[in-house]
Amino acid sequence: MTTRNDCLTRDAHDPLAALRDQFDLPAGVIYLDGNSLGARPKAALARAQHVIGHEWGKDLIRSWNTAGWFDMPKRLGNRLAPLIGARDGEVVVTDTTSLNLFKALAAAIHLQAQHPERSGRRVIITERTNFPTDIYMAQGLSSWLDRGYTVKLVDSVEDIPAALDGDAAVLMLTHVNYRTGYQHDMAALTRLAHEAGAVAIWDLAHSAGAVPVDLHAAHADFAVGCTYKYLNGGPGAPAFIWVPQRHQAAFTQPLSGWWGHAAPFAMAPDFAPTEGIGRALCGTQPVTSLALVECGLDVFEQTNMAAIRAKSLALTDLFIELVESRCAGHPLGLVTPRDHARRGSQVSFTHPHGFAVMAALIERGVIGDYREPHIMRFGFTPLYTSFADVWDAVEILKEILDNGKYDIAAERGAVT
Amino acid sequence: MTTRNDCLTRDAHDPLAALRDQFDLPAGVIYLDGNSLGARPKAALARAQHVIGHEWGKDLIRSWNTAGWFDMPKRLGNRLAPLIGARDGEVVVTDTTSLNLFKALAAAIHLQAQHPERSGRRVIITERTNFPTDIYMAQGLSSWLDRGYTVKLVDSVEDIPAALDGDAAVLMLTHVNYRTGYQHDMAALTRLAHEAGAVAIWDLAHSAGAVPVDLHAAHADFAVGCTYKYLNGGPGAPAFIWVPQRHQAAFTQPLSGWWGHAAPFAMAPDFAPTEGIGRALCGTQPVTSLALVECGLDVFEQTNMAAIRAKSLALTDLFIELVESRCAGHPLGLVTPRDHARRGSQVSFTHPHGFAVMAALIERGVIGDYREPHIMRFGFTPLYTSFADVWDAVEILKEILDNGKYDIAAERGAVT
Repeated sequence: MTTRNDCLTRDAHDPLAALRDQFDLPAGVIYLDGNSLGARPKAALARAQHVIGHEWGKDLIRSWNTAGWFDMPKRLGNRLAPLIGARDGEVVVTDTTSLNLFKALAAAIHLQAQHPERSGRRVIITERTNFPTDIYMAQGLSSWLDRGYTVKLVDSVEDIPAALDGDAAVLMLTHVNYRTGYQHDMAALTRLAHEAGAVAIWDLAHSAGAVPVDLHAAHADFAVGCTYKYLNGGPGAPAFIWVPQRHQAAFTQPLSGWWGHAAPFAMAPDFAPTEGIGRALCGTQPVTSLALVECGLDVFEQTNMAAIRAKSLALTDLFIELVESRCAGHPLGLVTPRDHARRGSQVSFTHPHGFAVMAALIERGVIGDYREPHIMRFGFTPLYTSFADVWDAVEILKEILDNGKYDIAAERGAVT
Repeated sequence: MTTRNDCLTRDAHDPLAALRDQFDLPAGVIYLDGNSLGARPKAALARAQHVIGHEWGKDLIRSWNTAGWFDMPKRLGNRLAPLIGARDGEVVVTDTTSLNLFKALAAAIHLQAQHPERSGRRVIITERTNFPTDIYMAQGLSSWLDRGYTVKLVDSVEDIPAALDGDAAVLMLTHVNYRTGYQHDMAALTRLAHEAGAVAIWDLAHSAGAVPVDLHAAHADFAVGCTYKYLNGGPGAPAFIWVPQRHQAAFTQPLSGWWGHAAPFAMAPDFAPTEGIGRALCGTQPVTSLALVECGLDVFEQTNMAAIRAKSLALTDLFIELVESRCAGHPLGLVTPRDHARRGSQVSFTHPHGFAVMAALIERGVIGDYREPHIMRFGFTPLYTSFADVWDAVEILKEILDNGKYDIAAERGAVT
């Protein structure tokens, strides 16, 4: 039986423990919501002061060149690339995940149209349980194209092979499910998609910085993701898009703004896309928010995804073990896979009063979040979550459940 | 003949003079590029520290509610609205100008499709000299719709009436031209568009905070604009979109992300747009950059657009007078209209070596910018530009021209 002392011992031997000091974690809080908004790297404050006080305040317009603002989407993309198995010149940090997915979907449809034998395919396949904004963007694109595109929602991963029929244009999946923490087999599903003649797009919102990802090994076609969750880039920080070199020459998308132009300062009246990943750029980016993404990436350069994954699995295993042992008898249902290969870096449990229990946890300083229906989500960020945190969080959960200290009349109010 | 003392006297009697103290302007710099990147409100640094240190760092995910992150696009929109003749609930600050224009164009096309007698119209009309990204976005949207849409570029404002024929779906114009500073007659052109059965979209990038705008008086249909130029919102700060209440129920656009959903936390698998201006929202916004927009708007609440316009015309009149008198004999050509009604808040002069002369000016601390072909742009921001600044800038220009102190081999490197 694991004890709190065992947890302290594991912390003492944790090779990542020292990284916790690089984050600003408020006193009295056990933060298990890094899957929604990553904690603040301490360095972010000084970086913002420099960007705002010096680059904007003193150098003003000149900072587009002198401070590297113009190159920032590509520079940050190159730094992020190793975390997802991408190469130099294949990633830009820009816009939002929703918008980048729109670009990837449009590019995928364009790609299929180049193949005469596939140009008649009109179905975008995804999961009904995918993060809703992904589905909404696919619906938005489909309904605006007068080509009869539809979005087909499958109910489970088992239904994907049958859905990949002769009409399948695109398979669009989120690698780690935001609600359940289920991790798809990216390589296997991409292979299935390709065998069926479909293009595979992956949303890495809950994967980048959370689990090892190797886009090239999986032969994925396009990917998008988020920097404000496990990458700790700051609230609403710009997202990323990956376009492998093999697809860049054919990459075409309708959000064709000045930043994606071959000669953005020639002021030509016709759009001509730049070479390479730059054609995924569109309009002027929010420089201050963009610059803070680098502070999150700086921490990752001090470790590697193998070490992060090893601790992530240890933390989530421990959480499952402790909840199931110490809170036994309460109506908690594990939603997240026990199988390591299928697990992301979060653990979700259902409870009939999940919202109220989560509200009580938050009141006690254990911050997870709630997702319909009945699901309490707990995200584990190896960079700043300790084994003792896991113990303490479960003890507080046990106390709330044992004493019924939650208000079932409480209303909900969490945000993704 | 105006003297420097006259300028100092005008500064002494300038009712806006005190506002200059609210901006951080570097020593030794005369900043005439607020039409590209507005100067930094001093308050921005403390605001960023609060957002990053407290809202992100301490309150973490709870700040979506407690710090009003979720309401920020609408709250900032309501504060911006009076500057452009818009009403409460008609403006959101979000995404980029390019993307908002894409939404407005899509909504305009959808609007036309509702009128059986106009649903066959397939031409988007704009000026060849419009800011290129506006043209590019229209081209991007057109080429992705399989409905035969095209973008027609007119060479001058005189060509617009003839272009507004039975095929005209949308008239899309930038109110104040980025290069020349020419200001369109918004009401007259909107009336022309409507008489021809077209929808009128206005880009206010060089208008919001620069010149009085009354979208409702002009009966405009949609508008977009920028917060990082005359509104001083910070580098690349999120843009805005205006949808008047009369068009909100029919407002439909393909960038349908979670933030525009009627029930964003119900996690429903089908997109259903929210009521009102919220349906112009798409994905998660860059909170830090967004929050800084408020610091710029705070300054505007201490004055009004009539006072700003009076000083803007006085500054630009003075600049034209001084350049034409003190730099007489040099090959400078005024591009900006002398007519007040047709002038924005900038003055552009051509010079055969415009790029080199501007580089020399910047070297001497007079920061304007250069735009192809041969155009030197000087932006005047009444909130922080003094009459003495105008005198001193012209004296430095005169010295550079009189002594040929510019390097015609210099390369270009400015950014919008």
